[in-house]
Amino acid sequence: MTSTAARTALDLTSDLPVTDLEDLYRDLHRHPELSLREHRTAGTLAGRLAKAGYETTEGVGGTGVVGRLRNGDGPTVLLRADMDALPVQEATGLPYASRTDGVMHACGHDLHVTWLTGAAAALAAGRDTWRGTLLVVGQPAEETGQGAARMVADGLYERFGRPDVLLGQHAAPGPAGLYPHAPGLIMSASTDVDIVVHGRGGHGSRPEATVDPVVTAAYLVTRLQTVVSRELAAGEAAVLTVGRIEAGTRHNIIPSEARVSLNLRSRSEEVRQRMLAAIRRIAHGECLAAGCPREPEVTVGSTFPVTVNDAATDTTVAAVHGEVFGADTVFDPGPAMGSEDFPELALGSIPYSYWFVTTTPAEVWEQAPGDTFPEKFAAVPSNHSPHFAPDLPTIGPGVRTLVSGALAVLSGA
Amino acid sequence: MTSTAARTALDLTSDLPVTDLEDLYRDLHRHPELSLREHRTAGTLAGRLAKAGYETTEGVGGTGVVGRLRNGDGPTVLLRADMDALPVQEATGLPYASRTDGVMHACGHDLHVTWLTGAAAALAAGRDTWRGTLLVVGQPAEETGQGAARMVADGLYERFGRPDVLLGQHAAPGPAGLYPHAPGLIMSASTDVDIVVHGRGGHGSRPEATVDPVVTAAYLVTRLQTVVSRELAAGEAAVLTVGRIEAGTRHNIIPSEARVSLNLRSRSEEVRQRMLAAIRRIAHGECLAAGCPREPEVTVGSTFPVTVNDAATDTTVAAVHGEVFGADTVFDPGPAMGSEDFPELALGSIPYSYWFVTTTPAEVWEQAPGDTFPEKFAAVPSNHSPHFAPDLPTIGPGVRTLVSGALAVLSGA
Amino acid sequence: MTSTAARTALDLTSDLPVTDLEDLYRDLHRHPELSLREHRTAGTLAGRLAKAGYETTEGVGGTGVVGRLRNGDGPTVLLRADMDALPVQEATGLPYASRTDGVMHACGHDLHVTWLTGAAAALAAGRDTWRGTLLVVGQPAEETGQGAARMVADGLYERFGRPDVLLGQHAAPGPAGLYPHAPGLIMSASTDVDIVVHGRGGHGSRPEATVDPVVTAAYLVTRLQTVVSRELAAGEAAVLTVGRIEAGTRHNIIPSEARVSLNLRSRSEEVRQRMLAAIRRIAHGECLAAGCPREPEVTVGSTFPVTVNDAATDTTVAAVHGEVFGADTVFDPGPAMGSEDFPELALGSIPYSYWFVTTTPAEVWEQAPGDTFPEKFAAVPSNHSPHFAPDLPTIGPGVRTLVSGALAVLSGA
Amino acid sequence: MTSTAARTALDLTSDLPVTDLEDLYRDLHRHPELSLREHRTAGTLAGRLAKAGYETTEGVGGTGVVGRLRNGDGPTVLLRADMDALPVQEATGLPYASRTDGVMHACGHDLHVTWLTGAAAALAAGRDTWRGTLLVVGQPAEETGQGAARMVADGLYERFGRPDVLLGQHAAPGPAGLYPHAPGLIMSASTDVDIVVHGRGGHGSRPEATVDPVVTAAYLVTRLQTVVSRELAAGEAAVLTVGRIEAGTRHNIIPSEARVSLNLRSRSEEVRQRMLAAIRRIAHGECLAAGCPREPEVTVGSTFPVTVNDAATDTTVAAVHGEVFGADTVFDPGPAMGSEDFPELALGSIPYSYWFVTTTPAEVWEQAPGDTFPEKFAAVPSNHSPHFAPDLPTIGPGVRTLVSGALAVLSGA
Repeated sequence: MTSTAARTALDLTSDLPVTDLEDLYRDLHRHPELSLREHRTAGTLAGRLAKAGYETTEGVGGTGVVGRLRNGDGPTVLLRADMDALPVQEATGLPYASRTDGVMHACGHDLHVTWLTGAAAALAAGRDTWRGTLLVVGQPAEETGQGAARMVADGLYERFGRPDVLLGQHAAPGPAGLYPHAPGLIMSASTDVDIVVHGRGGHGSRPEATVDPVVTAAYLVTRLQTVVSRELAAGEAAVLTVGRIEAGTRHNIIPSEARVSLNLRSRSEEVRQRMLAAIRRIAHGECLAAGCPREPEVTVGSTFPVTVNDAATDTTVAAVHGEVFGADTVFDPGPAMGSEDFPELALGSIPYSYWFVTTTPAEVWEQAPGDTFPEKFAAVPSNHSPHFAPDLPTIGPGVRTLVSGALAVLSGA
Repeated sequence: MTSTAARTALDLTSDLPVTDLEDLYRDLHRHPELSLREHRTAGTLAGRLAKAGYETTEGVGGTGVVGRLRNGDGPTVLLRADMDALPVQEATGLPYASRTDGVMHACGHDLHVTWLTGAAAALAAGRDTWRGTLLVVGQPAEETGQGAARMVADGLYERFGRPDVLLGQHAAPGPAGLYPHAPGLIMSASTDVDIVVHGRGGHGSRPEATVDPVVTAAYLVTRLQTVVSRELAAGEAAVLTVGRIEAGTRHNIIPSEARVSLNLRSRSEEVRQRMLAAIRRIAHGECLAAGCPREPEVTVGSTFPVTVNDAATDTTVAAVHGEVFGADTVFDPGPAMGSEDFPELALGSIPYSYWFVTTTPAEVWEQAPGDTFPEKFAAVPSNHSPHFAPDLPTIGPGVRTLVSGALAVLSGA
Repeated sequence: MTSTAARTALDLTSDLPVTDLEDLYRDLHRHPELSLREHRTAGTLAGRLAKAGYETTEGVGGTGVVGRLRNGDGPTVLLRADMDALPVQEATGLPYASRTDGVMHACGHDLHVTWLTGAAAALAAGRDTWRGTLLVVGQPAEETGQGAARMVADGLYERFGRPDVLLGQHAAPGPAGLYPHAPGLIMSASTDVDIVVHGRGGHGSRPEATVDPVVTAAYLVTRLQTVVSRELAAGEAAVLTVGRIEAGTRHNIIPSEARVSLNLRSRSEEVRQRMLAAIRRIAHGECLAAGCPREPEVTVGSTFPVTVNDAATDTTVAAVHGEVFGADTVFDPGPAMGSEDFPELALGSIPYSYWFVTTTPAEVWEQAPGDTFPEKFAAVPSNHSPHFAPDLPTIGPGVRTLVSGALAVLSGA
Repeated sequence: MTSTAARTALDLTSDLPVTDLEDLYRDLHRHPELSLREHRTAGTLAGRLAKAGYETTEGVGGTGVVGRLRNGDGPTVLLRADMDALPVQEATGLPYASRTDGVMHACGHDLHVTWLTGAAAALAAGRDTWRGTLLVVGQPAEETGQGAARMVADGLYERFGRPDVLLGQHAAPGPAGLYPHAPGLIMSASTDVDIVVHGRGGHGSRPEATVDPVVTAAYLVTRLQTVVSRELAAGEAAVLTVGRIEAGTRHNIIPSEARVSLNLRSRSEEVRQRMLAAIRRIAHGECLAAGCPREPEVTVGSTFPVTVNDAATDTTVAAVHGEVFGADTVFDPGPAMGSEDFPELALGSIPYSYWFVTTTPAEVWEQAPGDTFPEKFAAVPSNHSPHFAPDLPTIGPGVRTLVSGALAVLSGA
């Protein structure tokens, strides 16, 4: 334990208001809000930031929140948490489970906001230990890939100053108490695609008078499995997930169209383009095989870039995390297949560090089947699962990661 | 042209108020109502029956209508029209297209009500030509297979008398002006089945931590094709249609379950049981292949019986139709794969005749691709299609079929 | 029992050399020969016919046999048995099972030859009871659809006289002792189709450098299920069977092509054409979906016509069978999906009767699962099964069907 | 260019008999021999080695060849080439294409033998430049994974001495002139699996009396795509290839079983076990869905281990290759999905270096579609392709790699 940043971070967080932060977390978890509707969440965050002494602005890029703390000469450091929840029906059975039907904080953004709130308060209280400017950002609509770009387009940097460094973190499955870092590629690119299959509707008892889009969509989904299994080299990490299929209203009516929504993950633009070409080709071929009266519509939707940490920045932040939590808690997990719109905040040039904080309760981890880390990792509830339930004792550590990371890149006092 | 019934029918319908009936039809078509919500339709029918001199009762079995005309000694004949529309988005572009979004008279029940209204009025006006009792029934919820049974359960026969004969008819594709009759099996049995596939949800970028129910449901739908293609003899006419598939909400969330709704048509209980067993076996096998954490739920829903005309009754009715419209307009089409809950009104013992009236406009028929009747039949918009649009000039003939059919089984005056 | 033909037939067959015929049957069964290689079988048949007094010719249309017995004025009646076996590995475990690896009399043609031999001898011995000419034909290559046409093309009728009536019969599953007859359509049309899928081969560990024809062919086979399940009306009896699929040589080499061989059954040319068009469309679409470097080759092979009995002839023959075996043993089974090249002998104009003889041993039938005839019919070993094993006691009855049928259409003495 | 080994290697290979080696290569290519039948190839190699002064032994482990050259004190170095060809029908159109129908040197083992022959001769001729013992091994049956283990079991090291280092190389696609090396994992594990699907055979026109194994196997192959696409994390490089499917003999016979042969590639035992479990589960589920009368048989066949270079040895060899050919010709390609039985020679403890030599002719590479290395790599004919055709001018370089590699690990004179 040698660096000033690490020592200061431990000092500043030695007496965190853990009960208060847990209450905040449970409150956020009970009241999840979908993308761009994070009004209550934003209000809560803004109130806390203002109380901690930040100049606070709401409504940036829709429902975004910015808190600024100017504290003398020094670099500007942006700390970011995303705020939106997901259209998932919670199944955790927790006493503080979602009270909104069909909406859930299944990706841990409630924890991200809690962490950010705690860190912002601690850094403000300890402002005599550092110099520079803090931008604390509550970002909307990460799940839909819109929020970061909307905040930038709404003048985030013109209005509040361009940061020198960005820091972000994400809750992840894994035994609570690990801090995976990668000095380069850490998250993959993501692209949404929608396919509409046009058949010809009719009575369920007379399929011969129709072109059945339900059956066509089903064959299409099975055929799409070959994009990953046959068309990409084994080493080209990529995923094609059909997250949604929808067709028809009644047992005995053959509808006239079917809709398939899918998401791609890849680690290079070349692979992404190859996957898109394969999807178009397969959709075309399957609809031709079915005799569809019209070509399928294949529409490319939200796209997330790859998340590539600046090596120097991430090495600095990983080092301080190693000091704060122990060297064996920080390791390079290799690139994940998840995606973020966090890089949109970097405008292609601002260096950033983005890391994970594992949040699976110890007892859940231990009881999960499997002997190896990957086995258990696959067995515990992951992000977007209706059973995703981070461990409450990770609230303190997630505040410390932000505080120590910020201190490591700010100027000492 | 020899029988009294035929001659009288032509007399009674020689001066039908065609313009008024067309207006009625267009009004009903504009205002389609889903099963058990046929309030406006029932009110319209009841008003017309009352005006024509029938004792009229609404609300039988929910939204059913019964009109009774007691006209001396003689048999009791029940004339039935079904009244409900379908959850289909109309695409005919007609000036009198549905004004209710997502609901459409895509099965011609509006025409059935119009025919019944016209026939009830003509038979009432000509009551000096016959003896007996007419029961004119507007049945709800045929599409969901509930209406006939509900009317019976609500005391239809206890309250209004048990009929000696039932008569019913249905609009069907085919060049307007044909009257298909069969002296036995004319429509198939129908059974709805729902399947819920239980997977394990999670993030779209980490399928290895999930059991993907979307992909499982897609393979299931493709596998179900083999029930008809491999497990039934070619001569065993049967259909398995998946009318609806639904899973997931977002591109990048793997949901935890998928729902498949399907409908079977068969002509014997043995085949129906074999199909159900095959569906259960396939659902079980596919979920096992997928590694689903739970067995799929396979639930049998609405079931329609086979429609089997009483040979003597149907031969009598077919004969009078041949006299009224010409012998070459009546033919035996063989059993259709469609289904009806009309037989529920027969209680297993009341003889009945159920026939079709073709309603495809001549020009649509002629321009349809194909040289043979089956080819054209397959090419024109069929029942349940968003393009289903019966020919208005079939209004008069559909009144005459009911009037002549009723006179053929009532006593002469 | 009234007709002369029936009485005479019973007389002529009252003392059949059953042991000898059983030995003949077992010998033929032990030595099955594939289509157009029926040398041993043809020799055996020819020897027997010559011994019975027939003018005998071998090598007609390849390996065909013709025996002629001219017996005064009267009609010419052709009795036909097919002689070829199948590439099936016998699994009956019978003491007289096939001694040729991979070849088996799995369709009962050995029984047909035995029946014909017995009938030819009985009719020759009893030639004082009838007048006319008998043509006894051992036809090659029925399984490949080549034999009848080849015999005709080889001058069958120019060389031996054009018959007035054709008679043929086939062993079928069903409890031994039934004689299904239909006075019109009795067997379906059949068409073979071959599909070659062209992929691009390569190393199994690098599928991304290939277009995998194995996977493409597998999707194609699953997709072809929809031809029957979705594209034909339920009432249009039709079958599409993929009898053979073949691709690749080694676990880890992706081959460059795959071959699929299929067979269609239909009851009309229109349906056959629709099925062929659907197959072409699906093969094209699937290969397009796969990104195949070349279009698939879809080749139409052997085609069998429908078998349609002459109503008058078949009624006559069915009547005599009813007299000989009991009226309740003769019934109309409706059209079967099987196919024959027997109609090729009719040149589109010679009337014929073709019927079935059921040959499942009583104990096998009784122990088969199921309560109904169709259930048991589906459960016992059918033609082309490696377990197909006709009952030996049906040898006598199958001789009597031919003898009585022939006598019914020949002139009395 | 500094090391003695590099300088000596260039000296010893400055005057290679290229025309003779090309003739040897073309002769081997014309006469490919399947695994464990490499008699002619082994004889040719043995003759050359004997002529060059090696003590030569044939028939080691079947058809293996060992040449030994004892040259004073120093380490024993084993140079290995595999000798067997593949059951592939050559489609290169080369003047020296395979003369054996259905067998081809599609994996470059002919080139490996040629390289080894040239290197053995050069090292023997230059024996005054080094000290130690050379073991030159022509290994049979690499493709079937049997050869290395068979040679070891046949006393390879007891009879000829245990080597201190093993060296091996493999022809690979890529623009001729590159030498990919990896100081650790370079090739994947491979496992063959055979699946037999048991259906119930019968006549193609009566599928309802059968359980169709062709259709079942087709669904199985499509379902197996999900092992890679859904059950493994994107980062877990793995491949599942169905290299062979075979069922049925005739268009209209439904066979009683189908056979599927597949090959897995993985980089860890854990992933391999997960893939095997998924395959078993899917085969079981699909056969259950089909109603198969018996469980499928899933048999695990040949298994190749991972190939993991000794870091120190490979770094040494890579360094000398960089000196001989230029530093930019040596690079770390990351682990390949291909597999080798070469590690079987290491007995788990002998250090080895195994590298690639790219052999795609420059003009083929340049004309291949794509702008990036991976695109072109995917587009040119790869190993096991019927179009695989290494560039003849790579004969000299492949001799130099072996000579320089050997000199780098032998003692200097």
